[in-house]
Amino acid sequence: MAERLTAEARKQALGDIAGWTEVQGELQGRDAIGKTFIFKDFNEAFGFMTRAALIAEKMDHHPEWRNVYKTVEVVLSTHDAGGVTELDIRLAKAMNAIAKLTPG
Amino acid sequence: MAERLTAEARKQALGDIAGWTEVQGELQGRDAIGKTFIFKDFNEAFGFMTRAALIAEKMDHHPEWRNVYKTVEVVLSTHDAGGVTELDIRLAKAMNAIAKLTPG
Repeated sequence: MAERLTAEARKQALGDIAGWTEVQGELQGRDAIGKTFIFKDFNEAFGFMTRAALIAEKMDHHPEWRNVYKTVEVVLSTHDAGGVTELDIRLAKAMNAIAKLTPG
Repeated sequence: MAERLTAEARKQALGDIAGWTEVQGELQGRDAIGKTFIFKDFNEAFGFMTRAALIAEKMDHHPEWRNVYKTVEVVLSTHDAGGVTELDIRLAKAMNAIAKLTPG
C-alpha cells in the first residue's frame, strides 16, 4: 500500500507539479492536493476528464472532481492512507501532462 | 431562449422523473434540480458521465456535476434563465434513461 507522504515530502513533490496546492479533501476530511483546470470549453474539459479517467482506472486510483462547463476542479488523496501518497503525485503529474496536450 | 419554469410546472415535471429533487445550484445560487446517481464502480459512473456528456454537448446545455469513484452528483439549472427550464427537464430525463441502461 502507498504510504502517506510527510508534510516535507509533500511540499517538495508539489514544487515539481505546476498549479497543485494543498487542500482539505471534502470526502476524506484529511490532507489532499488540488488544482482547478480551466479549458476553452466543455469539449476540452470533458476530453481532459476522459483521458484522465482512463489513467485513473488503470492506476486504480481515482480523483474527486467537479466539472462545470469548461472548469474541472480536482482533489486527490489516498483514502486508505488517510492523506497524500505517491499515487496522488503520479496522477497529478499525469493530469498536468494531459492538460498540456490540449490545444486550447 | 428557454423560459424558466414556474414553481408549479417544475414540481409537476419532477413528478415524472425519478429521483430528481429541487436544490440550490452552487454555481447559479438560484433554483436548480439535482440527483445523486450511484453506480457499481468508477467504470460505470464514468461511462454514464461520458454518455451524458455527449448528449449535453449536443443540446448545448451542460450539467454541474461531481464524481467521486462510483458516485455522480448532478445539478441542473439554466444559467441564462436564472432557474430551471425545459432544457433541464430534458437533460434529467436523458440521464435517467442512460442510468437505466447501465447493467449494474
